[in-house]
Amino acid sequence: MISNKMMEYVSNSSIIRAMFEEGKRLSSIYGEENVFDFSLGNPNVQPPDNIKKAILEILSEESPTLVHGYMNNSGYEDIRAEIASHLSRKYNLKLTSNNLIMTCGAAGGLNILLKTLLNPGDEVITFAPFFGEYKNYANNFEGNLVVVSSNLETFEPNLEELKEKITNKTKAIIINSPNNPTGVVYSETFIKELADLLNKKQEKLNTSIYLISDEPYREIVYDGVKVPYILKYYRNSFIGYSYSKSLSLPGERIGYIACNGEMDDFENVMQSLNVANRILGFVNAPSLFQRVIGKCLDTEVDVNIYKRNRDLLYNHLTEIGFPCVKPQGAFYLFPKSLIADDKKFAVEAKKFNILLVPGSAFGCPGHFRLSYCISYEKIEKSLDSFDKLAKIYLGS
Amino acid sequence: MISNKMMEYVSNSSIIRAMFEEGKRLSSIYGEENVFDFSLGNPNVQPPDNIKKAILEILSEESPTLVHGYMNNSGYEDIRAEIASHLSRKYNLKLTSNNLIMTCGAAGGLNILLKTLLNPGDEVITFAPFFGEYKNYANNFEGNLVVVSSNLETFEPNLEELKEKITNKTKAIIINSPNNPTGVVYSETFIKELADLLNKKQEKLNTSIYLISDEPYREIVYDGVKVPYILKYYRNSFIGYSYSKSLSLPGERIGYIACNGEMDDFENVMQSLNVANRILGFVNAPSLFQRVIGKCLDTEVDVNIYKRNRDLLYNHLTEIGFPCVKPQGAFYLFPKSLIADDKKFAVEAKKFNILLVPGSAFGCPGHFRLSYCISYEKIEKSLDSFDKLAKIYLGS
Repeated sequence: MISNKMMEYVSNSSIIRAMFEEGKRLSSIYGEENVFDFSLGNPNVQPPDNIKKAILEILSEESPTLVHGYMNNSGYEDIRAEIASHLSRKYNLKLTSNNLIMTCGAAGGLNILLKTLLNPGDEVITFAPFFGEYKNYANNFEGNLVVVSSNLETFEPNLEELKEKITNKTKAIIINSPNNPTGVVYSETFIKELADLLNKKQEKLNTSIYLISDEPYREIVYDGVKVPYILKYYRNSFIGYSYSKSLSLPGERIGYIACNGEMDDFENVMQSLNVANRILGFVNAPSLFQRVIGKCLDTEVDVNIYKRNRDLLYNHLTEIGFPCVKPQGAFYLFPKSLIADDKKFAVEAKKFNILLVPGSAFGCPGHFRLSYCISYEKIEKSLDSFDKLAKIYLGS
Repeated sequence: MISNKMMEYVSNSSIIRAMFEEGKRLSSIYGEENVFDFSLGNPNVQPPDNIKKAILEILSEESPTLVHGYMNNSGYEDIRAEIASHLSRKYNLKLTSNNLIMTCGAAGGLNILLKTLLNPGDEVITFAPFFGEYKNYANNFEGNLVVVSSNLETFEPNLEELKEKITNKTKAIIINSPNNPTGVVYSETFIKELADLLNKKQEKLNTSIYLISDEPYREIVYDGVKVPYILKYYRNSFIGYSYSKSLSLPGERIGYIACNGEMDDFENVMQSLNVANRILGFVNAPSLFQRVIGKCLDTEVDVNIYKRNRDLLYNHLTEIGFPCVKPQGAFYLFPKSLIADDKKFAVEAKKFNILLVPGSAFGCPGHFRLSYCISYEKIEKSLDSFDKLAKIYLGS
C-alpha cells in the first residue's frame, strides 16, 4: 500500500544501517568488545565543553519564548549575521545574514537546495565515490544523479569525463571535500580547473550550473591541509554546512547553507530556500541549537583524536598490504578490497568480526570504507583481525 | 533559474508570513504597542518550567555523546517506548515503541507520511477550512489535495460530499481537530460516522484509505471537551503530533507519528517512514528534545491563559456583531468577515492596525482568522479598534 518509490527503498534498505543492526547481533554473540564496527559515521569524540556552557547560559539569560519559539523560516536574523561575519573574517568575504539560511543539518540543506533548483528530469552530477544519499536527494525532486568517475590512485575527479557529461539538463554539481568515503581534500588547483570548466560550459550552453559544496567535514582535516572555500572561486556556488562533525552534534540537526551573493537569480533562490524549508516540513532549523551555534563560532572538537586513529589504522593497513590513498580529512579510509567483489569481501571481513561498508554503496566497487571515529583502543584491538583477513588473500 | 514549481511559491509567498512583515512595518510607524497582530500562530504562553529543569538534568546526568548523537532514524528506542506507554495508559491502547516514529514536528511528520503513501496523481482529501500547508505537502510528492466543504454554521465537515469525492485515487484523508483555523473539535459521533464511511469505501473500492489526524492542538482545549483518539475508531489511522503548542516549543521541531498497529501493510509503512525521515533530510528528530520529551510526558502549558483570551475576544466580537462559531480548542477564532470579500476586509482591518488572515488562505472565503495567542492586555487594547471596524459595516 506504500508508494512504489518507497517500496523500492524499503526493499534495498540502506546497507550502512543494515550493517548497524548486524553489529548489534554480533555483539550479542561475541561481546561488544570483540566486534570491530567500522561501518557508521557517528562521531565518537565528545562535543566540546563549550556546548554545555552555551546551553546553560542561554537558558539562564534569554527568554524561553524566544529560545524555543518560531522565527523567520531562514533562522534567527542575529545568529545568521554572526555566522556570516565569522565566515567573512575567516575567509575574507563579504557575507551578511542575507547570504545564509539555517538548516536541519547538511542533509536538510541539500534537500531544500535541490527542491529549489530542480525541474523534473534535471540532472545533478557528482563524483564517485560519493555519499549514497545524493541519489536519493535528487530523486526526491524528480531529478537524476549522474556520476562521473575519479582517478582511483588519487581520487581526483575526472574533469574530462565531467566535460562530456554536462548537458543543458545539468542543474547542479555536488562536491564533497573532505570526502566521504575517501578522506581526500580537493586542491585549490583542482577547484580552479573545475570552476573554469563550469564557467565555460555555462557560457556555451547559456544555462546556470550551480556548484554545491557539501562540507560537513571542513573542520576535520590533518597535517595543516587547507580546504579551498568554494564561494571564492565560483559565482554560482553554495556551501552546505553542518555542525554534526565539527562540534559532534549529529543528532541535533543543525547546519546552514551559505550562498554566493553574486549568483544568478540570487533573490529568488534565497526566497525559494526559505519557502522550501517551510513546505518540506523543516519549518526552521532547531531553535535552541541555532542560538548555541551563535555562542560557539570559534569552537571545534579536538581533531587530534581522529588524527591519531587515522595514523594507527592507515599505517597498519598499508603495511600489511592494503592499497590505500592517505586521507587528509574526514574520518574514513577507503582502501582497495583484496578481491574485486567488495560485497563478498565485506562478508569475509565479518568472519573476523570486522564490519565495513562495501565501496559499491558509494558507486565505487573494489573498495571498502572504514569509519575510524571509534576508540583508539578498539582500533588497536582490531589490527590482529585485519592481519588475519589480509593473510587469506596475500599470504603471510 | 529556480524550478517552475518553486517560482510559483515564491510569487505567491505565504500570506501569513507576509502579514508578519507587515506587522513589523506598522510597528515601526505606530509603535509596537499600537499594532494588533492576530496573524501568527506563535504560542505566547511560556514553556513550562519543567522544560528547563529537564534540559539541566539531561546535561548533568547523561553522556553528551548519547544526548547529541545519532540514533535510529525513527528516534531513541527508550523515548519512543515511554511515549507509547504514556499514550497507552492515557487512551487505553496497546502501543509500543514500534508504533511510533519521532519527527521534526507535525510538519515533518506529515511530509514523511505523504512521501510514504503517495504515488504521482494520488489524492489527499481534507475539509475546508484547512491549514494551507496541506496542499503544499501533497504537492511535494506529486499528489493533489481535494477539498471537501463544511457546514459553515458549525464547521462540521460535509460527509455526503466526502462520499462523492472519494475515488480509487484517494490515498489519505487529513483531519485537524482541534482545528486551525476554526477551533472546532470533532465530536465522537462525527468520528464514528467518518470511520464508518471510510470502511465502506475501502471495501467497495478495494483500496486502503489512510486517515491522518493532524493534532498539534490536542492539549489546547476548553470547557472539558474531549478530543476522540482516532486510533481507537479506525484501523488505517495515523496521528501526527507536535509538542509545539502543548509545551510551547514550536522552534524546536519535535513531535511524532503514532501508527495504528492493525493498519494495512504496517511493517512496510513503519520501515518507509524511517527511510523517508532519512532521505528527506530530517535524518532524525532533534536529539536533545527527544530526551526532554521523555522527562515531560505529563507536562502541559497552562491552557487557562488561552481560555481567558478566547473568552474576552469571542464575547466581545459576537457582542458587536461578528458571527462566529465558539471555538472549543486551539487558539484561533474564525468569524465571518463583514463583507463577502475577505481579502478586502483584511485590508480594511489594517487601517485600524489589526492584522488578521483572510479565510481564503484556508480555502474558506468570507471569513477571517484571528490568532489569540497574544497577551490579554493587547487583546483588551484592540477591542476599540474592532468596534471601529465593525461600525463601518454594521453602524453603531
